[in-house]
Amino acid sequence: MADEFDVIVIGAGPAGENVVDRAVRGGLTAAIVEERLAGGECAYWACVPSKALLRPVDLAGEVSRVPGLSLGPIDVPAVLARRDETVSNFDDSGQVRWIESVPAEFFRGRGRIDGPRRVRVTAEDGGERVITARQAVVLATGSVPAIPRTPGLAEARPWTSHEVTAATSIPERLVVIGGGVVACEMAQAMHGLGARSTTVLVRGDRLLSRMEPFAGELLAESFADAGIELRTHTDAVRVERPEPGGKVTVHLPEGPPLEADELLVATGRRPATGDLGLSTVGLADGTIVEVDDSMRATGVADGWLYAVGDVNGRALLTHMGKYQARICGDVIAARARGDELPAMRDLVGGARSPQVVFTDPQVCAVGLTEEAARAAGIRVRTVEYDLGSVTGAYLMGDGYRGKAKAVVDEDRRILVGVTFVGPATADLLHSATIAVTAEVPLDLLWHAVPTFPTVSEIWLRLLEAYGL
Amino acid sequence: MADEFDVIVIGAGPAGENVVDRAVRGGLTAAIVEERLAGGECAYWACVPSKALLRPVDLAGEVSRVPGLSLGPIDVPAVLARRDETVSNFDDSGQVRWIESVPAEFFRGRGRIDGPRRVRVTAEDGGERVITARQAVVLATGSVPAIPRTPGLAEARPWTSHEVTAATSIPERLVVIGGGVVACEMAQAMHGLGARSTTVLVRGDRLLSRMEPFAGELLAESFADAGIELRTHTDAVRVERPEPGGKVTVHLPEGPPLEADELLVATGRRPATGDLGLSTVGLADGTIVEVDDSMRATGVADGWLYAVGDVNGRALLTHMGKYQARICGDVIAARARGDELPAMRDLVGGARSPQVVFTDPQVCAVGLTEEAARAAGIRVRTVEYDLGSVTGAYLMGDGYRGKAKAVVDEDRRILVGVTFVGPATADLLHSATIAVTAEVPLDLLWHAVPTFPTVSEIWLRLLEAYGL
Repeated sequence: MADEFDVIVIGAGPAGENVVDRAVRGGLTAAIVEERLAGGECAYWACVPSKALLRPVDLAGEVSRVPGLSLGPIDVPAVLARRDETVSNFDDSGQVRWIESVPAEFFRGRGRIDGPRRVRVTAEDGGERVITARQAVVLATGSVPAIPRTPGLAEARPWTSHEVTAATSIPERLVVIGGGVVACEMAQAMHGLGARSTTVLVRGDRLLSRMEPFAGELLAESFADAGIELRTHTDAVRVERPEPGGKVTVHLPEGPPLEADELLVATGRRPATGDLGLSTVGLADGTIVEVDDSMRATGVADGWLYAVGDVNGRALLTHMGKYQARICGDVIAARARGDELPAMRDLVGGARSPQVVFTDPQVCAVGLTEEAARAAGIRVRTVEYDLGSVTGAYLMGDGYRGKAKAVVDEDRRILVGVTFVGPATADLLHSATIAVTAEVPLDLLWHAVPTFPTVSEIWLRLLEAYGL
Repeated sequence: MADEFDVIVIGAGPAGENVVDRAVRGGLTAAIVEERLAGGECAYWACVPSKALLRPVDLAGEVSRVPGLSLGPIDVPAVLARRDETVSNFDDSGQVRWIESVPAEFFRGRGRIDGPRRVRVTAEDGGERVITARQAVVLATGSVPAIPRTPGLAEARPWTSHEVTAATSIPERLVVIGGGVVACEMAQAMHGLGARSTTVLVRGDRLLSRMEPFAGELLAESFADAGIELRTHTDAVRVERPEPGGKVTVHLPEGPPLEADELLVATGRRPATGDLGLSTVGLADGTIVEVDDSMRATGVADGWLYAVGDVNGRALLTHMGKYQARICGDVIAARARGDELPAMRDLVGGARSPQVVFTDPQVCAVGLTEEAARAAGIRVRTVEYDLGSVTGAYLMGDGYRGKAKAVVDEDRRILVGVTFVGPATADLLHSATIAVTAEVPLDLLWHAVPTFPTVSEIWLRLLEAYGL
């Protein structure tokens, strides 16, 4: 095994893997270091298993809206077995083989920066190696759930996204702290798979508070229909769990405490940079690694350090981490050749990232919300339209509920933000992502004719509502 | 009731209705004439009921691929009742109210051109009225199924799209003549709803012959899986049906004849212009009405005649008829004001129209096929990718099968055609429709990041396969 590589990546999640892939394609040698499983959080304890758990619940919702179809009870062990299959039974040998085929060197162990261009790898057995990078070190260690300092909470060892997506049984009574993506998705998954009582505690006034307000409102209606209890303007103030894994009591600011069999904390994430050796190169341990649009860390001399994915704090989304990684790998390879590749920059940024929340209804957004666009000083006009009034949505089932909103930059006559909320809109979003990213003029979008009868006809309705 | 209007539209299908809507919005008065039901073929005997019949079959297919879900037998009477609801139980009073609210004058009866700018309306009771148009007469009478001259076929009174979508029971044994959209969709619908034997006869070598070849091939695999028999390079040579509505015998060029309980003919359509008075203004009865990109008939002096939808033969698709109608209504209003509105033209044309076939797998295409692009002299490069390899597709179910193909104009580095074949791709198509219509450069499409894990990630895979 060599001790020197053009590029060393710490963290073999989707972002890290993509850096390696692009850098090697660009003619460089690469090593990648991973302490846990190659493939990363996304593949084993986040996006992939959560969608495997949600898919039957989501589809059961669709079936319930179609007269003539009737579903038997969900076979939960079969769903969990399918989930296990989607995470390769927590075996990363396929991923390791893929890395080796790139080809890149795979180091199993904890990677820490050890001064400029140096990475110290500590294996599980305590063995250490130092490897050095000729061109660049890339941080791609992702993020970890942030547990609030609520008394008793950490001691209760609550579920986070990590544990809930790997659940081997469904708790009878579940309390969820948080109202973001993980909280919403997993509340619906656990409830749909058989939790008898599911209570979601939100500090603010609604679910999905970074989205257009109607997203959280429509989702709250769906929670109510399903019997998921949503409590807003509240929070856990104290948690008790006398027996590890036993019953848990969640005390609230007022009223009787909640008794539950499990507690899921989904209140945000922090960068996994606490024990990464950042301080050996003058950065603060445990903080976000600030980067420029080429993913190069801004606080380090000689420009050899890069960071992609959750650690740079730009957009905590797998697809955006991968996007950053493609840019980063291409940029490192180009700079090694002496090029600067001006096109290889993050043109999207964090705030405009496309995102899908796989709830029922699905919540899909790209670009700026109305509030964010106004805050950015854009002369905004918005149009909204009831998705259920579109023939294609009506034909998907009885009682299809959803809504769409477009945020128009009136000076440029382009879309700067689009939100779709409704069943089966996840793959409709990419049309908006292209329109927003490519800044397609509204007058040209008018000639992109949605097929009848699809849900996509919402595009026609939005443009008509705008006056085209 | 007035006898003179700015615009008179013959045919109150989706195209005709949209002309009226846009013309009135542009400040004109309008009348619309319909012999049958306001809302047109699409609303009662085509797109809408066919999708109502297909939806449960399609969803049953999705459920079958998700471990943990099990569906009971489809309740066919409930499906037919839902179909009846989607076609408003063949009652057009809601549509008529909508027309009157535009506001426009609704005439129930057969409309025929009676010399320049004149329309003669014959009511069911034989009463006649002549109304005249100050600005324009618009033909929007659609099309009717073309029945081949096969001996005995017309006498057997076979089902066409009209009858099969209005079916009140499912035939035990069905023979389908044709391999286009109606044939494929309705063979799957009838088979999925309980036909014991379904045989599809195709003259050529594959289904959906105007699409990329792999579309028909993947659909044929799905037919085989479902037990639908596909016979290529064949056709009915003689049909016998001694008792009206009774058993039907279909003789083939070789081998034993097929016995069936019903016969569906879906071999194309012809414009409904046979009895429209075209000859009173110098056009040939029964032919397509040729139009320019503003939908104005090219063969008529003084430019007062327009034609939208199937009658002009440009694109036999409801959404394209509506698109033409929006253009037509705007153009007529603009010309009445003395404007020419150069932007108000059909920029899409027939061959590049987006289209979705609602089979399992769905077949979705926009722009040119590779063959058509090469024939047009474009310097073409294509990329293909297996849709089932996309994580988002894998998470939709076990054994997701599909494929995508992009046709690139290498000189302009834009997409000129995209085809997606796979379950639940109908609403993915609009992303391609925007990319093709707006001619978004590939290097910019690369920054439109598909969300993970959706089927839309096929976009990333296609662009990577292209070399981006």
